[in-house]
Amino acid sequence: MKKVVTIGREFGSGGRYIGQLAAEKLGYKFYDRELILLMAKESGLSDEFIEESGEKITSSLLFNVAMGGMYLSNSYNNNLMPLSDKIFVVQTKIINQIANEGPCVIVGRCADYILKERDDCLNVFIHCDMEDKIERAVKFYNMNQKNIEKEIRKKDKARASHYYYYTGIEWGVAKNYDITLNSGKIGAEKCADIIYNLAK
Amino acid sequence: MKKVVTIGREFGSGGRYIGQLAAEKLGYKFYDRELILLMAKESGLSDEFIEESGEKITSSLLFNVAMGGMYLSNSYNNNLMPLSDKIFVVQTKIINQIANEGPCVIVGRCADYILKERDDCLNVFIHCDMEDKIERAVKFYNMNQKNIEKEIRKKDKARASHYYYYTGIEWGVAKNYDITLNSGKIGAEKCADIIYNLAK
Repeated sequence: MKKVVTIGREFGSGGRYIGQLAAEKLGYKFYDRELILLMAKESGLSDEFIEESGEKITSSLLFNVAMGGMYLSNSYNNNLMPLSDKIFVVQTKIINQIANEGPCVIVGRCADYILKERDDCLNVFIHCDMEDKIERAVKFYNMNQKNIEKEIRKKDKARASHYYYYTGIEWGVAKNYDITLNSGKIGAEKCADIIYNLAK
Repeated sequence: MKKVVTIGREFGSGGRYIGQLAAEKLGYKFYDRELILLMAKESGLSDEFIEESGEKITSSLLFNVAMGGMYLSNSYNNNLMPLSDKIFVVQTKIINQIANEGPCVIVGRCADYILKERDDCLNVFIHCDMEDKIERAVKFYNMNQKNIEKEIRKKDKARASHYYYYTGIEWGVAKNYDITLNSGKIGAEKCADIIYNLAK
């Protein structure tokens, strides 16, 4: 039995939805937006700010100069550490905490890497072809058709950079996951079934 | 229903065995060594030579200079084309032919790329952790423990180079497959079950 399922996912692949379906089937807690709220509480930063920065930024000089006036409110308030790194430290603490609390599905946030020492994790990566991403992006995120492909690529590139910056591991390379699934080809429900069968 | 299952696999991951199990469950033909025999017949080269070169070589200058005296026996005998490229041309023809003949599982040989225009293919990639590869390599291939990790890495590197040379696509990157599976974590039988359920 795998007590923790981590899901990395390309933008528009439906990975979050698949995680939710799998969590329901397994009777596991589901963390994504909720995780952000927990993080915000811990760090004293606003939900919106953390959501914005949580998966997009690496500790680029420009970002941290621009954000130079903002500091975390508690013990993570070390002015020598870039803000994005502080967020990652908080994130690491919370992900370890929720994994210890009980069975759960965690979407994104480098959870696979953070929990890599545990042997009760199933690490999943969800992706799909560009046409399927565009369809989802228009349908569920109301994204504008203009430049949509470029926008989606930008989002995935940012996720890959963020992941690599904090883990030193390439995002979306098969060997770093127990299973990877093309949600467009396989279908969200079937993906969730496979995850359920592997984790239960 | 997916009429053709292609399986890319790391050395020592049991991908060939999983392909065989899946083919049995599905009642599909299985091609690996058999494919090599077919290729040999077509090209007039010996089985051993094709097996040796089929997945290892790219068209390196040295290899083709060394092999300069050997030519294919029929219409593929174009002296301006490197021998490794001639083998790839034969391979492409045969893989298309067997996919047209009926439901099948094809292991290796860039079959996923060669059949990329078909929409009845399930493209699978099997990998596993180094310790699991070593265990299989010792058990099934009688490989010597000395330098075994280096030897295994060399074999996978060669497969990756060959694949990239002929397809321009990175081997083992999730987005290039419908599903990738860590056979060590999931187990061969379960991998075959998942493939069966997705293809049937």
